[in-house]
Amino acid sequence: MNLNTNFQNIADSYLFSTIAHKVAAFGESHPGAPIIRLGIGDVTLPLAPVVIEAMQQALCEMSVQKSFKGYGPEQGYLFLKEAIHNYYGERKICLNVDEIFISDGAKSDLGNILDLFSVDNTVLVPDPVYPVYVDTNTMAGRKILFMDANEDNGFLPLPDPSIKADVIYLCSPNNPTGAVYDRAGLKAWVDYANENHAVILFDAAYECFIEDENLPRSIFEIEGAQTCAIEFCSFSKMAGFTGTRCGWTIVPLALQSEGMSLNKMWLRRQTTKFNGVPYVVQKGAAAVFSAQGQRQIEESLAYYKENAQVLARTLDELGIWYTGGKNSPYLWLKCPNDMDSWDFFDYLLEKANLVGTPGAGFGKNGNKFFRLTAFGDKAATREAAGRLKKLLG
Amino acid sequence: MNLNTNFQNIADSYLFSTIAHKVAAFGESHPGAPIIRLGIGDVTLPLAPVVIEAMQQALCEMSVQKSFKGYGPEQGYLFLKEAIHNYYGERKICLNVDEIFISDGAKSDLGNILDLFSVDNTVLVPDPVYPVYVDTNTMAGRKILFMDANEDNGFLPLPDPSIKADVIYLCSPNNPTGAVYDRAGLKAWVDYANENHAVILFDAAYECFIEDENLPRSIFEIEGAQTCAIEFCSFSKMAGFTGTRCGWTIVPLALQSEGMSLNKMWLRRQTTKFNGVPYVVQKGAAAVFSAQGQRQIEESLAYYKENAQVLARTLDELGIWYTGGKNSPYLWLKCPNDMDSWDFFDYLLEKANLVGTPGAGFGKNGNKFFRLTAFGDKAATREAAGRLKKLLG
Repeated sequence: MNLNTNFQNIADSYLFSTIAHKVAAFGESHPGAPIIRLGIGDVTLPLAPVVIEAMQQALCEMSVQKSFKGYGPEQGYLFLKEAIHNYYGERKICLNVDEIFISDGAKSDLGNILDLFSVDNTVLVPDPVYPVYVDTNTMAGRKILFMDANEDNGFLPLPDPSIKADVIYLCSPNNPTGAVYDRAGLKAWVDYANENHAVILFDAAYECFIEDENLPRSIFEIEGAQTCAIEFCSFSKMAGFTGTRCGWTIVPLALQSEGMSLNKMWLRRQTTKFNGVPYVVQKGAAAVFSAQGQRQIEESLAYYKENAQVLARTLDELGIWYTGGKNSPYLWLKCPNDMDSWDFFDYLLEKANLVGTPGAGFGKNGNKFFRLTAFGDKAATREAAGRLKKLLG
Repeated sequence: MNLNTNFQNIADSYLFSTIAHKVAAFGESHPGAPIIRLGIGDVTLPLAPVVIEAMQQALCEMSVQKSFKGYGPEQGYLFLKEAIHNYYGERKICLNVDEIFISDGAKSDLGNILDLFSVDNTVLVPDPVYPVYVDTNTMAGRKILFMDANEDNGFLPLPDPSIKADVIYLCSPNNPTGAVYDRAGLKAWVDYANENHAVILFDAAYECFIEDENLPRSIFEIEGAQTCAIEFCSFSKMAGFTGTRCGWTIVPLALQSEGMSLNKMWLRRQTTKFNGVPYVVQKGAAAVFSAQGQRQIEESLAYYKENAQVLARTLDELGIWYTGGKNSPYLWLKCPNDMDSWDFFDYLLEKANLVGTPGAGFGKNGNKFFRLTAFGDKAATREAAGRLKKLLG
């Protein structure tokens, strides 16, 4: 056998393990220090009662021969695809249910979708970036170009017509920067993609944090996206499904190239290499879209959004430049006094017992920046905000 | 963008849709005909009570902040990996828990594992074959060699030293033929793989149907397999998880090539392109290995095994040559009177209102063969056996 030697080109990431070691070492040398973690990228509130009820009901069905469900459609049950269809319909986005594929999460599909593309495509990703975009393409041996996201462009790079890319990753609201594209920004990307026969892989995993009605929550709010974009979304942050695993991917029927339909290719890929999401989980996901479900998840989202506001107000008061904090669970701040992001990490831990994520872990442009998240405990987040004010004020 | 044009080389399979159309047409022209389906490849009995209880309990944990589970380890929770470790230990197979990866099913991992191998590898598959082995490799552009499985070798081909293969698929008990390799057969393959620096992808999804203690249930019962084999297994047929989705993959630490560890590569692949199996599902899967769980799944397996025995005895009485039926949920019979498999399909449907699967759908060597399965209803299976005797006796 010959192995895929591209694996040797994937950089080992020690970001979160380095953080864990540093925090553990600090805890050992400072027993009882009241450490607060603001670096967490996972939800902390439990599943909504409607989701639990729907899953329990589905389990009852699975316990009886008459209502037992074996293999389901690889692309997902119609009841869930229709619920998602209606969710988009409320925002006047008219999808065909055959364009909706239920997945076990955005991360899986963002990687697996690459099966559809030739290895000789050029991939364009922003820097800083969610490492999965880079690693999945490196693994397959694709050429990757980086575009600078920085203070000058508000961490929202726009297309450079001199660069020829085939596959473009956009994430809005962005992880790690929290920055959100407006309609004009996304329209520029859609136009670029259509002109250059490129495809946009649009990661919308944080769309539920958008409160400003003028900001697009889906790439399909933008005219022309149906011929150049695939959207990935998830119940993870919307409804606390990080450990329950469900998402969806939209591959428009109008997305064609070389006489091939990407929708049909993806259907073939999924029916061949995937066997669907558990019935019980799909039932829980569908319950999110009931009137009661929407009220319940809004409560959890409001909790996280309030945490984001507390942190954003603190940075405002301190006069610290940042992106995110509004319409996003992430805050991406410029380290004070031109500090390096790892130096700032050590400084915060030492002086205020606060843990965040050094921006350098997401790419070279993250070097003097720092990520905080809104997924923590409410009281702890307020306490952290007070410590930040005291330390940096 | 340039698409992966290998997709154009995947043959469209209309096997099961053709069957469905034929059966529907027959039903319309013969209203009320008492059709019995013996072609089903899905389980029909509900989840075991211990599995339901464990999943209900896990849902309770997910409903409370203190016990809520977010992202879990991509490779699976230790409690489930340890349960699988012990399951192998009972058969004196000593694995390291780091060699066990929890998956959402054997089908996904059988396809995804190919990320680890270079495209220029030569793949060896038996004919007839489970189509996923062929389609996933065709999609990636690999050269595929077929080895004849036929009446002469009992549908259990052995290595041909004149053929140089890199990646070898073996499925035992086999789908579709029900044939099971003995230790000598698997030892021949392990020796061939080690001598030729090839890897065996061993699909053990039906191991729980093996009753004969002399037959190997895992490739790792064979000396030397640790340096040349990866095993895929599943809760689907063992515990009725076809719609609940859980399986496991074993990548030995000793499996190395070109200085690279396949175990480490797979870990990197899974942490990058997968986000783990739902916590609730993993809790249900772990319950299968409790003493009570083992008793409960044995009951369901006994039900299917009895169906297989009823069909096998019928074929024995009729003097029809077949593989499987023992140690397997599948029966692979030679069509009487040298009939073509589709002709026999029409004949059975017309004369006895029985539906099975024409062997030709699994490859050229299936042409005069026919697959029956043991996953149907007990009474219906007995009735079907009676009809077979009447028609062919």
